[in-house]
Amino acid sequence: MALIVQKYGGTSMGTPERIRDVARRVNRWKTQGNQVVVVVSAMSGETNRLLALAKSITPNPHPRELDVMISTGEQVTIALLAMALQDTGVKAKSYTGAQVKVLTDSVFTKARILSIDEENMRRDLDNDTVIIVAGFQGVDEFGNITTLGRGGSDTTAVALAAALKADECQIYTDVDGVYTTDPRIVPEARKLDRITFEEMLEMASLGSKVLQIRSVEFAGKYKVKLRVLSSFEEEGKETPGTLITVEEDNQMEQPIISGIAFNRDEAKLTVQGVPDRPGIASQILGPIAEANIDVDVIIQNVGHDGTTDFSFTVNRGDYDRTFKILDEKIKPHIGARAIEGDNKICKVSAVGVGMRSHPGVASQMFRALAEEGINIRMISTSEIKISVVVDEKYLELAVRALHQAFGLDKAPD
Amino acid sequence: MALIVQKYGGTSMGTPERIRDVARRVNRWKTQGNQVVVVVSAMSGETNRLLALAKSITPNPHPRELDVMISTGEQVTIALLAMALQDTGVKAKSYTGAQVKVLTDSVFTKARILSIDEENMRRDLDNDTVIIVAGFQGVDEFGNITTLGRGGSDTTAVALAAALKADECQIYTDVDGVYTTDPRIVPEARKLDRITFEEMLEMASLGSKVLQIRSVEFAGKYKVKLRVLSSFEEEGKETPGTLITVEEDNQMEQPIISGIAFNRDEAKLTVQGVPDRPGIASQILGPIAEANIDVDVIIQNVGHDGTTDFSFTVNRGDYDRTFKILDEKIKPHIGARAIEGDNKICKVSAVGVGMRSHPGVASQMFRALAEEGINIRMISTSEIKISVVVDEKYLELAVRALHQAFGLDKAPD
Repeated sequence: MALIVQKYGGTSMGTPERIRDVARRVNRWKTQGNQVVVVVSAMSGETNRLLALAKSITPNPHPRELDVMISTGEQVTIALLAMALQDTGVKAKSYTGAQVKVLTDSVFTKARILSIDEENMRRDLDNDTVIIVAGFQGVDEFGNITTLGRGGSDTTAVALAAALKADECQIYTDVDGVYTTDPRIVPEARKLDRITFEEMLEMASLGSKVLQIRSVEFAGKYKVKLRVLSSFEEEGKETPGTLITVEEDNQMEQPIISGIAFNRDEAKLTVQGVPDRPGIASQILGPIAEANIDVDVIIQNVGHDGTTDFSFTVNRGDYDRTFKILDEKIKPHIGARAIEGDNKICKVSAVGVGMRSHPGVASQMFRALAEEGINIRMISTSEIKISVVVDEKYLELAVRALHQAFGLDKAPD
Repeated sequence: MALIVQKYGGTSMGTPERIRDVARRVNRWKTQGNQVVVVVSAMSGETNRLLALAKSITPNPHPRELDVMISTGEQVTIALLAMALQDTGVKAKSYTGAQVKVLTDSVFTKARILSIDEENMRRDLDNDTVIIVAGFQGVDEFGNITTLGRGGSDTTAVALAAALKADECQIYTDVDGVYTTDPRIVPEARKLDRITFEEMLEMASLGSKVLQIRSVEFAGKYKVKLRVLSSFEEEGKETPGTLITVEEDNQMEQPIISGIAFNRDEAKLTVQGVPDRPGIASQILGPIAEANIDVDVIIQNVGHDGTTDFSFTVNRGDYDRTFKILDEKIKPHIGARAIEGDNKICKVSAVGVGMRSHPGVASQMFRALAEEGINIRMISTSEIKISVVVDEKYLELAVRALHQAFGLDKAPD
């Protein structure tokens, strides 16, 4: 008998039919002899409907009251799924975040989980009951309702799995696993049976939006076995999805590169002719951070003539704002020569824990891109990933070239 | 400085505009120096929408889960009203039933309030904050969410007023008070400035659906000053509505009759030729009660030849079911001669505490009906009311005749 935590998102809860589908799936896991805890999101569209209602009252709703309201979305779906499960003949009971209780800090609309009280759940599980928990929500020490912010239901599921020491945390989505890259760009993309937390983090932060980063970090920290799989597969045709594990593969020959990630929403800015003296990077990036703009890749060229060029990338949506800050505030302040920008760039990355022990991955990557005539604008590396910034028009070509160069279209031996 | 509890129903919460109207009204009470606690219902239509959603999952949703779901309706409106109030510059904070906490028994979908913890509210009130409480809901000793059943928001308001020892409990509705009778039938009907709890109970149970009976009983029991008034009156044009008080009027000349109530939804059944022996009434009414059918007026004629006729009224919706039980189960069992029924009848009642000290009210009533040629089918009396059952076609005529006969169209001196 295993203890399984399952999480179903908004599309899986989107209609009464879909909810009954989920109930039948949960029923199968239960009747196979498992203890099951289910975490659900609000019906797709419901959170936005509630937000619009709040905005119709006031443009700046108080965050505490927003959380009181938004949290009703999951409160409806836990009850609906409990009813649907009871209808299949299984004992089921719903829990709001406050009822669990999922204790959080008091940062409304983006609270962080502090602890989970598993006592009540444990009693119900031992009483043969399926537990259905509202994702995305909690309660602070004063009894105020809080929500966890975007992707919060994944985080709830992982936190519950950690608290209950579950055997597995299954995240059901509308895709059947994590792929070597986006199959819409590379039809030969292959579903991965396994991926490490570190690789998943790099894949997620680079735009493969299967799982929210916070939940992956959480799972890694508490060593929760996480599995991504599809809630749309028919009975009898289910596939095991992708397992995200803390241990690296024990196989002799592990793949060097697990996947090719990419991000289209990037823009690049360069401060030219910066005086090459200590503290210049923080003088440039300080005002950017104060304006709440996230900076991704950062490059400082080797200086000559006492000046240097300083480049970085930001989300494309922040491009105009960033350019203005650089041009009006930073350029005169530090005495730079000019500001140059390009918002038609993208980032392509090769990710894999295997590269730690395999030198030469970078040069293999650059060669593959050169063979396609793709000019590299920026390079950034970490322990388990190499990213290049290239012109946006090369995105698909670069992804396909790298996917083939690292043999990702072939199943591992 | 007074402590006021106000309750706003679903139509008052029906649209963002209406919610902002309510916020402005509450703001006026607050800035006049009062402490204000507001109880709200769900937006009109929302509870039915949620019920339909539950029914789309299963025809028999589990009551516990139904309450989890239905209670979200008020959770949304408390947040919206809190936001709207904050927008008017007043400190406001929402409370769900569980947050208050409104402790109830565990009878889901029709729980009863056991106690209210006023400590948190008291602290917020002293901190100059308007408190907005979700009506209709509570929490049981195990932390389960419960709802109070129909009219539950009125009950919540009265219970809060009792717990907080409020100076007044104001029930805002879409009418501006309690009338001597339905103005749609008698245009001369007059709004009453005051009415006693006992009169209000008789008026309410007889079909004047301004207030729910339970809340009036509750208010009477805990001596809460209750006022019915309109949430649709413009600023500067508000009227004081109708005050429902525990004390009878101290005026020398109090009106004998306060109002004429009526109920159209009645049906009459007669068991003819019943053996006139002890225990026969319970043999007839026992199976009716077991079938969950409410019986209203009950009459047993004087017997002759060792048999008697036994008549009673039920809700018209229960007529067919009741007839079947009488005909198939009770008639053969007790050896009655025949079952007779009439579902085209109605009940008209004169209500007033003054009749206690004024003999002759009944004969005045019967005379007024006789003068219009209205045949009385059944009569039932209590301390402060006289009811007659008449053919439904006479309803309006009877109400008008009695309203005039007791001088209700004239303002008291």
